[in-house]
Amino acid sequence: MKPVIVMQSDFGTDSGLVSCMHGICKIVDPGLEIFDITHILPAFDIEAASFCLQYTVPCWPEGTIFVSVVDPGVGTDRRASVAKLKNGSYVVTPDNGALTYLDQMIGIEEIREIDESVNRYPKTMEISVFHGRDLFSYCAAKLASGQITFEEVGPAYPIEEMVLHKTYPSVIKAEGVEGSILWFDPFGSAGTSIKNADLVQCGFKTGDKATVKIYDGSELLFEGLVPYERSFGYVEKGEPVIFNGLTSFATIAVNEGSFADRYQLKKDQVYRVEIQKL
Amino acid sequence: MKPVIVMQSDFGTDSGLVSCMHGICKIVDPGLEIFDITHILPAFDIEAASFCLQYTVPCWPEGTIFVSVVDPGVGTDRRASVAKLKNGSYVVTPDNGALTYLDQMIGIEEIREIDESVNRYPKTMEISVFHGRDLFSYCAAKLASGQITFEEVGPAYPIEEMVLHKTYPSVIKAEGVEGSILWFDPFGSAGTSIKNADLVQCGFKTGDKATVKIYDGSELLFEGLVPYERSFGYVEKGEPVIFNGLTSFATIAVNEGSFADRYQLKKDQVYRVEIQKL
Amino acid sequence: MKPVIVMQSDFGTDSGLVSCMHGICKIVDPGLEIFDITHILPAFDIEAASFCLQYTVPCWPEGTIFVSVVDPGVGTDRRASVAKLKNGSYVVTPDNGALTYLDQMIGIEEIREIDESVNRYPKTMEISVFHGRDLFSYCAAKLASGQITFEEVGPAYPIEEMVLHKTYPSVIKAEGVEGSILWFDPFGSAGTSIKNADLVQCGFKTGDKATVKIYDGSELLFEGLVPYERSFGYVEKGEPVIFNGLTSFATIAVNEGSFADRYQLKKDQVYRVEIQKL
Repeated sequence: MKPVIVMQSDFGTDSGLVSCMHGICKIVDPGLEIFDITHILPAFDIEAASFCLQYTVPCWPEGTIFVSVVDPGVGTDRRASVAKLKNGSYVVTPDNGALTYLDQMIGIEEIREIDESVNRYPKTMEISVFHGRDLFSYCAAKLASGQITFEEVGPAYPIEEMVLHKTYPSVIKAEGVEGSILWFDPFGSAGTSIKNADLVQCGFKTGDKATVKIYDGSELLFEGLVPYERSFGYVEKGEPVIFNGLTSFATIAVNEGSFADRYQLKKDQVYRVEIQKL
Repeated sequence: MKPVIVMQSDFGTDSGLVSCMHGICKIVDPGLEIFDITHILPAFDIEAASFCLQYTVPCWPEGTIFVSVVDPGVGTDRRASVAKLKNGSYVVTPDNGALTYLDQMIGIEEIREIDESVNRYPKTMEISVFHGRDLFSYCAAKLASGQITFEEVGPAYPIEEMVLHKTYPSVIKAEGVEGSILWFDPFGSAGTSIKNADLVQCGFKTGDKATVKIYDGSELLFEGLVPYERSFGYVEKGEPVIFNGLTSFATIAVNEGSFADRYQLKKDQVYRVEIQKL
Repeated sequence: MKPVIVMQSDFGTDSGLVSCMHGICKIVDPGLEIFDITHILPAFDIEAASFCLQYTVPCWPEGTIFVSVVDPGVGTDRRASVAKLKNGSYVVTPDNGALTYLDQMIGIEEIREIDESVNRYPKTMEISVFHGRDLFSYCAAKLASGQITFEEVGPAYPIEEMVLHKTYPSVIKAEGVEGSILWFDPFGSAGTSIKNADLVQCGFKTGDKATVKIYDGSELLFEGLVPYERSFGYVEKGEPVIFNGLTSFATIAVNEGSFADRYQLKKDQVYRVEIQKL
């Protein structure tokens, strides 16, 4: 059975752009199956693409071929690449930082630059702005269909040359964990850079209470005694809570509400967070 | 041929959450096909989930396996269930009211609580907030693939214990029908709780005119002589019209406009409506 | 292998309407595959539907069956039709102008009116407002599954009777090209009616600079010396640029920004544009 193709981009869903990417795959091989992660990643936001891949890739079968197109440098000399992950899946993407979290969480086994002379859709050579369709989807489809091997994608290059974006590692200290709030989920819950495993390592147990502080630079925006529970449903409606997030990172939320709205946190900003044992 | 899986949730489409649910199904069985109803149901709105299932389920083949995840109680002791409908389809859902309209319109044949010890994705036991992926999608995929029978989902319980939300039945009177406006479709047309069949039973025929009154409590918000037609295209642009709705319930609209906006009706409110024969 | 069905509409994605169309196809033939272009076309906007088909259809295999439902006249006597394109694909659509750009760019080989007496979903005869499901999707599925031939769709009628919307042709002059700005892509870039091929014909080469003028009637809204490049990535962030658009038409953009927002162009308006050689 052929691996499925799973796509994400910042192309939006109000045009035919995503459908063009799907269609090219079916032109390459009508037997391919295509799924989507999301196509409303924030425009040009490579870190968002990187983070989204991190928690989505492990939910698909090993060997799945992902296409990620957040590509502010389309048509310029940034590398168009295919990475083979240590779990056996592939990511077809501009090498612009989109692989950063996967590198940390799963590991990159090998990376190759797509050879445009053979793995670019030949009918659209006069158009350079739609590599999502003409290069990334087309190459992914050839790989998924078995028309090319990973080696035939193009030349390998050292993993050390792969572009990485800045990350915000967590630090385990005697009194607890420090990290950052990096994103907000669809419900407005705060996704941290503190791994679920970090909390366990610090000795947190379900039912414990933690002192949580959130800072914008030196300004304290939130301070509270917050229970660490299995889920938001374990606290009263409107109450704050910490739990193991679905992304592998600890999440701070309010039950049936938006933590971001409640404490006026901005979706495009990074906050420092401290979680201390009582 | 295996039944398809059809999903709905309030997870939004701007993250990878829905894709995680799709992926888990393919991990269970790469041969499964997965479709979606919508994933932008209003957050935590169980009645919206219930209504959406009501008019969507009959449009899919009998035997289809639906997954509905609007789950404010995730991780708590609300039941995670699979209902077998009288048309042979299945709905995998928290038992929190989501089955109410299906119970009324199609009927529930049997309901079983998912046995988490065998039908929960074993890799994510430390995460309790993503039952959409780890419990509902995983169990639905096992059922769709034939890895478990409906009986193996878990223990049956009395249908009378199923959670139902409040509904707004219509009442047929000598002079017409009374009911409620419950929702607005994507074009802003008003979906009532008056069945298409109720209008027929009252003797309405295409081309008839009806006196329509809409109340917010005792306040009259709309009163007009409205034609009952086959479709909105039968009246002038901007004119109001009643027709048989695609959801099985009568709809009040304005041609090429939004009835909700025109008469300042709010999407999250329930209004009383009277439709009287002239 | 059966052709895939590819759908677009203005139904939105926040309800179950699109899923009802998918489901009906699977009721007709569980073996069918269904994809989507977009379902958030601007409501009732036939020109948007027409334009979206124009650049999407060529990205799918020949023989694909498209369903396009932007249908302000649903339930009235506008024709419900299936067009066979000169590339072998089919479009199932109300004949209301949606085929205009395809007629210009690919060509219509034959058009037939759907015979409702045989090609309409029999279970929903009392509902006239959901031809997207009951007529267009149902008929498309019968055609895709091979249950009917194109001839069995219904009677052919002269292509000259096909409804066409107004278009804004480009004009090649001694000093350059004149045309219109017709739409804005998801990033706010301006899509013109000037074909990529027109620019080539005028002698434009990558790296050239063009004098671009944009008018609202007689009012000059934008005048600038704009480079013609392979892609937006070839100019500095925030700088304007012209390039060959993915839709086959030249696009005017600013790198990593919205041309529409920057120059306060409205998404629902048509502007005149002149592109002159330096």
